Amino acid sequence: MKATNIVWSDGYLTSTDFEKRFKQKGCVIWFTGLSGSGKSTISERVQKELFEMGHIVYVLDGDNVRHGLNKDLGFSPDDRVENIRRIGEVAKLFRQAGIIVLTAFISPYRKDRDTVREIMDEGSFLEVYVEADIETCKKRDPKGLYEKAIAGKIPEFTGISAPYEEPLKPELTVDTNGETVEQSARHVIDLLKSRKII
Amino acid sequence: MKATNIVWSDGYLTSTDFEKRFKQKGCVIWFTGLSGSGKSTISERVQKELFEMGHIVYVLDGDNVRHGLNKDLGFSPDDRVENIRRIGEVAKLFRQAGIIVLTAFISPYRKDRDTVREIMDEGSFLEVYVEADIETCKKRDPKGLYEKAIAGKIPEFTGISAPYEEPLKPELTVDTNGETVEQSARHVIDLLKSRKII
Repeated sequence: MKATNIVWSDGYLTSTDFEKRFKQKGCVIWFTGLSGSGKSTISERVQKELFEMGHIVYVLDGDNVRHGLNKDLGFSPDDRVENIRRIGEVAKLFRQAGIIVLTAFISPYRKDRDTVREIMDEGSFLEVYVEADIETCKKRDPKGLYEKAIAGKIPEFTGISAPYEEPLKPELTVDTNGETVEQSARHVIDLLKSRKII
Repeated sequence: MKATNIVWSDGYLTSTDFEKRFKQKGCVIWFTGLSGSGKSTISERVQKELFEMGHIVYVLDGDNVRHGLNKDLGFSPDDRVENIRRIGEVAKLFRQAGIIVLTAFISPYRKDRDTVREIMDEGSFLEVYVEADIETCKKRDPKGLYEKAIAGKIPEFTGISAPYEEPLKPELTVDTNGETVEQSARHVIDLLKSRKII
């Protein structure tokens, strides 16, 4: 990469400096949906496709957030709110760094997702509803979580013993009952193109 | 940027994928020192020089962290610990994304800094002690904070009414009593070269 013309004025580099260099806009693609709906699988596919295209893209998910930044949080209502708030703030930092950041969390509450949307610049928060019937998710159940939740071994499990509030106006809905992962990923990438993120 | 060969196996891209693409190692350069010692000024200079060289580099500082992720935290002992813990965890995420992340926080307690060091992979946490006499800092006092602190208007102000524990074994010390910003920045960049980060 060749150095671009940066202004040596006071202050740190800005989103604009990064975006010019990276040839993309920083943004947050917020995947939401039931456990087993396909958030991780789709975000993984999208990440790899974007990376192959030369983009700079990072994923925040339970593995890298719950065991680190949010390891002090449990699953009480207050802690769930705080969990999503912090993820939103971290996603915002990545966005400011000019990065396309994908988040893959159930994030069941509309209000929490809307709170994240509010802290982002207009147009830089793209909510993707990963839709799948609860029956489909139960059948997939890759980690055996539904089985445990139905048996009462996991309290407050979204879709079983805790609510999931689907998005009212997501930027995109992918219906994984019928679509393949490749198709869903394609829809996400088309969205980024239509929004001139990439 | 040309696509590199990535493995389409299960899971997200790894640090190794990013580092190969970015031609750098992800790392955390942790600046610590008194208010007015020059942490922000030096990190700004280092960021811009690295960016000019083609590197991917982001800065975490009070402006983007205290008003967002850590806006629920005050300056009590517990909150200070949690403040640094979260910054460390966020820095770790940026590092995992293959990015060189600079942090510019007073971070006065040795134990808190060491806790951050412990969560990082060996060699990816570089502590830079930005050394300046308290008298020098008081003279600079760009935000008039020392004046207020001495007048008792800011409680628990590091160096005046709260302790600063200097690093015992920092990877680098820059002495801004005598060095110019350019010289200090050069020392940091030389450190990155000697550690084969860049």
